[in-house]
Amino acid sequence: MKLKVFVDFTLPRNVLELLQQGTVGHELIFPQKPMTSVLAKAEWDPQFKSVDIAFGQPDIESITRAENLRWIHVSSSSITRYDSAEFRALMKERNIVVSNSAAVYNEACADHALSFMLAQARQLPLGLKTRAASGTEAWNQLRDSSLPLRGQTVLIVGFGAIGKRLTELLQPFDMNVIAFRRRARGDEGIPVIPEAELPDAFEQADHVMNILPDSLETQKYFVAERFAAMKPGAVFYNIGRGATVDQDALLNALRSGHIKAAWLDVTDPEPLPDDHPLWIQPNCFITPHVAGGHFEESRTLAQHFLKNFRRFVGGEPIFDRVM
Amino acid sequence: MKLKVFVDFTLPRNVLELLQQGTVGHELIFPQKPMTSVLAKAEWDPQFKSVDIAFGQPDIESITRAENLRWIHVSSSSITRYDSAEFRALMKERNIVVSNSAAVYNEACADHALSFMLAQARQLPLGLKTRAASGTEAWNQLRDSSLPLRGQTVLIVGFGAIGKRLTELLQPFDMNVIAFRRRARGDEGIPVIPEAELPDAFEQADHVMNILPDSLETQKYFVAERFAAMKPGAVFYNIGRGATVDQDALLNALRSGHIKAAWLDVTDPEPLPDDHPLWIQPNCFITPHVAGGHFEESRTLAQHFLKNFRRFVGGEPIFDRVM
Repeated sequence: MKLKVFVDFTLPRNVLELLQQGTVGHELIFPQKPMTSVLAKAEWDPQFKSVDIAFGQPDIESITRAENLRWIHVSSSSITRYDSAEFRALMKERNIVVSNSAAVYNEACADHALSFMLAQARQLPLGLKTRAASGTEAWNQLRDSSLPLRGQTVLIVGFGAIGKRLTELLQPFDMNVIAFRRRARGDEGIPVIPEAELPDAFEQADHVMNILPDSLETQKYFVAERFAAMKPGAVFYNIGRGATVDQDALLNALRSGHIKAAWLDVTDPEPLPDDHPLWIQPNCFITPHVAGGHFEESRTLAQHFLKNFRRFVGGEPIFDRVM
Repeated sequence: MKLKVFVDFTLPRNVLELLQQGTVGHELIFPQKPMTSVLAKAEWDPQFKSVDIAFGQPDIESITRAENLRWIHVSSSSITRYDSAEFRALMKERNIVVSNSAAVYNEACADHALSFMLAQARQLPLGLKTRAASGTEAWNQLRDSSLPLRGQTVLIVGFGAIGKRLTELLQPFDMNVIAFRRRARGDEGIPVIPEAELPDAFEQADHVMNILPDSLETQKYFVAERFAAMKPGAVFYNIGRGATVDQDALLNALRSGHIKAAWLDVTDPEPLPDDHPLWIQPNCFITPHVAGGHFEESRTLAQHFLKNFRRFVGGEPIFDRVM
């Protein structure tokens, strides 16, 4: 059976060829209006009506009107756009499988998270800026402010596949890793603490790693009270979504020094306005939502899709299913 | 028997107390002229003549004139000051044991090395500077220039205790780790390649980690030919000693782009003169000899010494013996 596959993001020629080779005998359909990024939302497209598979960020209206759709493979880690009870019900009713591309970004995201933790531990921003000579007060202070990760405690909030990979990377550091997610699945590899133990965990953690997705439940999860409940001198990281943090509260916690430093790959909005105080807060370090980025990521995206496509064609269960 | 222990570096009061408690019943002797850092060389001190143990960086003249000296515990990782055939012969003749403090700095040095590798992999210097918005050309380029460590090859030149610890930290990245040192001891934990295989190793390595100590054999080990023999786009790191690198050759390799980037914790001299071109070379990143630095390091130094002191008093063999 010839399947129609709708691909709604722009691919470099070599990756397009890879996708064509991997779907020989089937039909690739591209939107009339090309997309700018894997995160951009597609517009309604009349061709969508007859497709079997969608790979990208199809818009909900197109999905609703699609007559043959059986599988949506979202081209991002986050499924925020689709993450509602209504949409889940629609998928169930229509018998449409939804999978995501988290696996494509997990490795890079975990690397990015560890790069933040080590840059903080080794005081890289200051070290790379100073020209302090050995034995000077500034030099002694720099050395003395480097805190080994070994033996410290990290609390990972929103523990999923990225947290799992980060835990693997942290294994040689013998850290105390505390995992928290709302709905433990049992495949986390380490025990997930119940919500009742969170206050204790916040009190203990030297590092608070926020990997929460953006959902109604998680919006402004990190408010003033939560920062206040953290151990004095804790370091806060966000590689989840910017909307999960009350940025004014974070700014206050950084200004008071209660939070020693913040490392953010995501903010709200992105980028922050040019005059936003977090840009110039000396203990705040911001990268522009690149944690999942890696060399030729559209190739790994396409490879990941094709692995699942072969399973779909072979009648096997889809990997990384989220609905 | 009451031992006289000469301690020739300045200790904060709480660490001094720790040292006093750990040597109760023995005598601590401090130099008439206090030292500025653990790396500074002590001057000749008449008190030295009768000491049994020296902890610090005693000068060679003092050692030569000492009559009762049985053990020198060097307060640094490097023993460059003492690393000559003549000195080794003197120690042997006088039956003086020499140990070093490498164990105190290994963990921090390995952390620093990995922080460099991950900062490079995740392009932190650029990422922390840019305010690029999602979907822009600059943003796409930044994401695309992040190369995962996973599966890459690292060549560690001067593979000792730091290299061993770094190899442990790299284990979850499934990298191909190639170890080289002149005189393999068999306790490296991974195979050490013979010199004949070095050219191949330089051709393969995505990352060249220099951890060479400074000795007559290693001076300017990294010359133009060696940089030319590296894989195009390799990244060079130096957490060993600055004198092991021909800095003009490194600069040329960085300017041509043959070496994608250099991350240096050590230079020659330290710090580099203010007008040195490496300071402003965009793909060169320098920290000021802080790789081994960590919170309260004089405490870990003292603890490490005391562990050995107890062995010395108990007649057990000294840990971390180098002569």
